[in-house]
Amino acid sequence: MVVIPERPGGSGVTSARAAASYESDEGFRVPHKTVIIGGGAAGLGAAGGVKAARPDAEVVVYTEYEDVAYSPCGIPYVHGKEISDFDKLFLASKEQYVEAGIDVHYETTVAKVDTAARKVHVDGEGAVAYDTLIFATGFEYADPGVPGSDLDGLYYVKNIRRAMEWDRVLDSVKKAVVVEATPLGVEMTTSLAHRGIETHLVDPHSWPLGEMADPDIMAPVEESWRELGVTSHFNTELRGFVGQGHVTAVSTSDGEIPCDLVVVATHKVANARLAADAGLKIGTTGGVIVDERMQTSVPGVYAAGDCTEIPHGLTRVPLQGLTGSHAYAQGKTAGTNAGGGDRKYKAVYVPWGTPAGKWIIGGASFGETTATALGIPYVLGQAQGISRARYYPDVKPVKVKLLAEPGSLRLIGAQIVGGEGIKERADFLAMAVKHGFTFHDLATMENVYSPAIGALNEPIVVAATNGLDELRKAGKL
Amino acid sequence: MVVIPERPGGSGVTSARAAASYESDEGFRVPHKTVIIGGGAAGLGAAGGVKAARPDAEVVVYTEYEDVAYSPCGIPYVHGKEISDFDKLFLASKEQYVEAGIDVHYETTVAKVDTAARKVHVDGEGAVAYDTLIFATGFEYADPGVPGSDLDGLYYVKNIRRAMEWDRVLDSVKKAVVVEATPLGVEMTTSLAHRGIETHLVDPHSWPLGEMADPDIMAPVEESWRELGVTSHFNTELRGFVGQGHVTAVSTSDGEIPCDLVVVATHKVANARLAADAGLKIGTTGGVIVDERMQTSVPGVYAAGDCTEIPHGLTRVPLQGLTGSHAYAQGKTAGTNAGGGDRKYKAVYVPWGTPAGKWIIGGASFGETTATALGIPYVLGQAQGISRARYYPDVKPVKVKLLAEPGSLRLIGAQIVGGEGIKERADFLAMAVKHGFTFHDLATMENVYSPAIGALNEPIVVAATNGLDELRKAGKL
Repeated sequence: MVVIPERPGGSGVTSARAAASYESDEGFRVPHKTVIIGGGAAGLGAAGGVKAARPDAEVVVYTEYEDVAYSPCGIPYVHGKEISDFDKLFLASKEQYVEAGIDVHYETTVAKVDTAARKVHVDGEGAVAYDTLIFATGFEYADPGVPGSDLDGLYYVKNIRRAMEWDRVLDSVKKAVVVEATPLGVEMTTSLAHRGIETHLVDPHSWPLGEMADPDIMAPVEESWRELGVTSHFNTELRGFVGQGHVTAVSTSDGEIPCDLVVVATHKVANARLAADAGLKIGTTGGVIVDERMQTSVPGVYAAGDCTEIPHGLTRVPLQGLTGSHAYAQGKTAGTNAGGGDRKYKAVYVPWGTPAGKWIIGGASFGETTATALGIPYVLGQAQGISRARYYPDVKPVKVKLLAEPGSLRLIGAQIVGGEGIKERADFLAMAVKHGFTFHDLATMENVYSPAIGALNEPIVVAATNGLDELRKAGKL
Repeated sequence: MVVIPERPGGSGVTSARAAASYESDEGFRVPHKTVIIGGGAAGLGAAGGVKAARPDAEVVVYTEYEDVAYSPCGIPYVHGKEISDFDKLFLASKEQYVEAGIDVHYETTVAKVDTAARKVHVDGEGAVAYDTLIFATGFEYADPGVPGSDLDGLYYVKNIRRAMEWDRVLDSVKKAVVVEATPLGVEMTTSLAHRGIETHLVDPHSWPLGEMADPDIMAPVEESWRELGVTSHFNTELRGFVGQGHVTAVSTSDGEIPCDLVVVATHKVANARLAADAGLKIGTTGGVIVDERMQTSVPGVYAAGDCTEIPHGLTRVPLQGLTGSHAYAQGKTAGTNAGGGDRKYKAVYVPWGTPAGKWIIGGASFGETTATALGIPYVLGQAQGISRARYYPDVKPVKVKLLAEPGSLRLIGAQIVGGEGIKERADFLAMAVKHGFTFHDLATMENVYSPAIGALNEPIVVAATNGLDELRKAGKL
């Protein structure tokens, strides 16, 4: 998540129409107040969006926390000692928000929203009127739903102040369990292992990221975890947390795992209670339903980030719990529109990527696992390529797997595992899915060849070429 | 260049029609012989292409050199000590070509081609008949056209055996001059400086790569060369090489530069004399003219690689002297077609990239310099972005400059300078130009956000967004 206030009139996309819309017919300026609930990437993106669209708008952000201007996504890397200290995660000072005209109320809870009266009820402040309202209430970790959830020593990674405290705890932790191989679970497993803590990973699926990544993509990750001393317990159900006051073990379908600390990295669920109570329509994922302008079912009320759900570009299946980059862009959209501008947020094709063990994994849209679960037919193109000339120092493997629609051979998804250039390839492949590139397009694409930075044959090109070859051999082309 | 023989039926694209075409109507196999002149990336790509299309074809490759199976592109990096020795550049053994059924004749000169008789005249072998012929005769460095060109100590980087000899010479070189800041000149300047040699660069343009790269992209490169102790002499004409038997200085419009060695990195010109003598049509660049199937003006005769010219995708201006990756793909196309298959090589959008000083530079299609020279109007979108979260170790700057057609805002070119992910972005941007992506498409593209591998805002997205903002401010959107 980013926390740098936008310059008014800066990179927010605002139409000329919008810039004029806050003058009345008589030419008097009409005061406008936007209330934003939540100070994460979506909330701050929204605040910047409002200010860009309508520089004189009053913008108030309510957050339960002590800070807004930091990157929670960096927390696992401080725990893993890749980043030297938490101070580096703070990216803007509270004064910068004041200067940008964004009034952040820290450690403040919004108790209730009355959309009919256009008021929010703030603990300690009473009723606060708004012209437009933006929900950016984020996510919560799913309740593990097992006994012992009230024990000490269960760490839910979220807030930076708590992370600083937990980091001191980690100094004396010898053995930790990570519950669920979600994206955060994967990051924390890697980080704890890097830190030299004996780490166990418990997950009900057969491989990490079992609902989104494919087993062949995750196999090298599991192997590198083994090298780092991680013990993985897949196909394993969580039964409970064991201990007297403080957790001393995790109980699973595979037996008890003694430990000093548990990272509870269950999947994220939309924090949409307040929105639901206010009468906003909630979708099948539990997220607030929004249109392309990030407007909810109630006029004048917007939502953005992890509390919403967004349709997948190809399948229209609603997705919840995307990245900070998505949250920020959604926030900007909601804020621009709440400020009287006009900006759309389209369905998503979901480029993703993260370090995992000693590898970088990533992809776009979906892989075989999801396609199979959704009953979507596909043909495959795969390649084991390299990131530089094979003789150049630090050359890294790059495995690319492409899924295409049978017949048209339009790309519908991709997954990658390798050593470098994964994020840039994932970004490209998401655009390739969005714009309907086919195996033919990718097989004939040109690529940079320069020994230190790129191999003669780009792995994406080889994967598409191999996909075409397989079809040809099978008589299907 | 790559030198791994293609598996027959491997990644070459061959139509079903082609696979059947070498049986006569009576079902007897018709013998087929393809002669290839040149053992570089284009020649060996062609040999693999023929074998993939027509496994029983007789394929003979003639090369003037002692080797084929190595990467000349790696030579500057061995000189620069990034790669430890020349052995690493050898990628396949001579036996591998024998096993692949490719008959390479080393240290052999083809003296003449008679396309009417379908014969080549080979020094020491006499007349050799062919069914199809492929020119892959590569490039030569342009004659510097100044006195002293016959002195010892002038190094033209090309052949690996000579490079090994020159590498030993470099051990005792204190001061070197690189003539012209061409792509090879840029690489060699960086390499010689890395090696600790006092290096001077002489070039008639105002900045390095003065005909293709933009000055703002090259400015950080020049600065990093200064840090490495390189003295650049731009706007400086070469007057001659000075010395008695061995070069002792380079004479320029800016005075004499004493030196022990000169790397002559003048621009590449097509080595098309043999083709021209054989009556093949030659284009304005001096390269052999080919169609999409890499066929020359003479039926049954193909050409590929640096001896040809290929139209630029947008401007149709013929380009000569592309990369090893282009040469290899052209070779495969020529070989496939020469073997009776059907494969097309389309106009190029030219992703490029190379290390330069401490930076990586790259781009796609063209930059401002070329657009201006060609009289092509454009609007700009620029951004100074970063490659990872700003707090993550080894985060690198990434400057992106996008050129779009006024009005439609379709991308027509891009240039980049930065620390990592340049090659992957250049590949993507070439596809973006080819497929007509607009500033709007790029400004709304999703990107991976993960602190260790990607920033919240992808620099390409920021550049497109800034381009739109500039247009909006100027009232042009």
